[in-house]
Amino acid sequence: MARVESVLGVDIGGTNTVLGFVDRKGRLIVDASMRTEAHQPATVFFERLHEAAETLRETTDEECELLGIGIGAPNANYFKGTIESPPNLSWEFVDVVGETKKHFSVPVSVTNDANAAALGEMLFGAARGMRDFIVITLGTGLGSGIVANGELIYGADSFAGEIGHTIVDPSGRECGCGRRGCLETYASASGLCRTVQELICTSSEPSRLRRVDFLHLTSRMVFEAAQQGDRLALEAFEMTGRILGMKLADSVAHTSPEAIILVGGLAAAGDLIFKPTKRSLEEHLMGIYKNKVKLLPSGLVEDNTAVLGASALIWNSLGKRPRSRNLVASMTG
Amino acid sequence: MARVESVLGVDIGGTNTVLGFVDRKGRLIVDASMRTEAHQPATVFFERLHEAAETLRETTDEECELLGIGIGAPNANYFKGTIESPPNLSWEFVDVVGETKKHFSVPVSVTNDANAAALGEMLFGAARGMRDFIVITLGTGLGSGIVANGELIYGADSFAGEIGHTIVDPSGRECGCGRRGCLETYASASGLCRTVQELICTSSEPSRLRRVDFLHLTSRMVFEAAQQGDRLALEAFEMTGRILGMKLADSVAHTSPEAIILVGGLAAAGDLIFKPTKRSLEEHLMGIYKNKVKLLPSGLVEDNTAVLGASALIWNSLGKRPRSRNLVASMTG
Repeated sequence: MARVESVLGVDIGGTNTVLGFVDRKGRLIVDASMRTEAHQPATVFFERLHEAAETLRETTDEECELLGIGIGAPNANYFKGTIESPPNLSWEFVDVVGETKKHFSVPVSVTNDANAAALGEMLFGAARGMRDFIVITLGTGLGSGIVANGELIYGADSFAGEIGHTIVDPSGRECGCGRRGCLETYASASGLCRTVQELICTSSEPSRLRRVDFLHLTSRMVFEAAQQGDRLALEAFEMTGRILGMKLADSVAHTSPEAIILVGGLAAAGDLIFKPTKRSLEEHLMGIYKNKVKLLPSGLVEDNTAVLGASALIWNSLGKRPRSRNLVASMTG
Repeated sequence: MARVESVLGVDIGGTNTVLGFVDRKGRLIVDASMRTEAHQPATVFFERLHEAAETLRETTDEECELLGIGIGAPNANYFKGTIESPPNLSWEFVDVVGETKKHFSVPVSVTNDANAAALGEMLFGAARGMRDFIVITLGTGLGSGIVANGELIYGADSFAGEIGHTIVDPSGRECGCGRRGCLETYASASGLCRTVQELICTSSEPSRLRRVDFLHLTSRMVFEAAQQGDRLALEAFEMTGRILGMKLADSVAHTSPEAIILVGGLAAAGDLIFKPTKRSLEEHLMGIYKNKVKLLPSGLVEDNTAVLGASALIWNSLGKRPRSRNLVASMTG
């Protein structure tokens, strides 16, 4: 049986948790999905995670030597190894590293999904070889991971990189964070739907989306309408990109990245979101930054980008110090 | 004669250039000022700088062993060692490091004044022991130096840290950078004067400042009026702090600093600027950052903070590698 060094990448979501073994080059050896079942205590979850990993390791014809476990989770504190009051999970406070180490005797790290995505792009994707870049995850919300001088920025408290909560308009749309006008209320899948609703009020443009009520409207519907030339849907993408590009110009003025990488569901809309974002970014950039900053899609080829990103948390730290034998441990029960 | 290891710090300004020898602890051993005379070729300037440094070294009763030269200058490119089209200097492009090395055989580095200020605070001032902080220089404009993971962020092209050119209002005040609504058009000495002018139009508040025309109005006059209770002047400081605090909340969402340090002429207004800035910062911060970020004045005790900051550029790099004898060179002519 072929022996391969691997890291277990885990992405904990509100409904499902995905896990997989990833090799040093970012190849997903094997992966699986399990229900998170966050209504049960976290200790039960980590027992089930251990079982799932053991089972998964047996399904592959390669012998996965486990070097570490990287975990992506909402509201993760990298410094403390915890998650705190995560949205969509009923756990209040979980010592993720401690709970995981009850079952595995390898290094364990946890960070939020956008930071994991940034490390994934740096090691295996569009940011290979870059020392300064920003990853923006455009999902239901807007997450971000900022890399400067070749290092992910965690900041003083590990909560750096919340570009989704920079302010577009202090009297603007209500945000889940309790404030108003945050970027993610405009530039995200849900923000796109809110913009459609705004345009339904403010413009007279006929649109098939006028027949869909707000609770049933999805960014996929807006995408499909736009693809078929629905002008209101096209305008919604245009407005989304305009606001996103304007605020990303502020981000460039902070860290002067070589590239900004847009990933996640809304980024999959391709030109519909990239073109207006790029146009607005260049329009709002200060002269010294113009025509320098690349706007790129994800460079990850595997489907399971969240697992790759989570594994990169460990691969990145292993890459920084000389290989030591005592990091090579096998799974324990 | 006492022998002391020193770095020559140089701050090149539009009118005057200040220089001084600084020891490892940030003590200014001796300093002087010379006219920049930027109408003459840059080569002449660097010859005069060399003469001034030689003369200065002879005026002290300590023998200054020169370990390096740190230079702060507008539009400096740290990576290339150059300054390019600096405002208020008629030089188009200057190879600062190359020109300086014609006269000195020690390491030479150049960066902009806000980055130098950040390194000065990190080594000798309010940010000692911090790994994540931001320095904001409130002068005629608004400069910034961002430190994350213990390193100054230069970004892909060395032009990171232009928080003064993040956008408050895309249809707002015209900025010297050619765009509209940049933070420095509101939060700076000149921004404060523009705000006074705006309040003269929009409010009916009586004020002694109504008698001063725009070209003669200075931030010092606004400060003195505010100290004497002039309500329009007080409101101008209030508005300045409100806008500054709001945009600094965006900066916190990028790098999650332990502290933001306000330095420069306008910061010397003390509570008049710190109080509204702090209030607005806390109001606009996302929940996870509230009541965590310190807002501090400069911690540099010497008068000549620009020279200290410039010297810190060298002291910081020397601190990162083991002392090597070949770094210790003496001045050559």
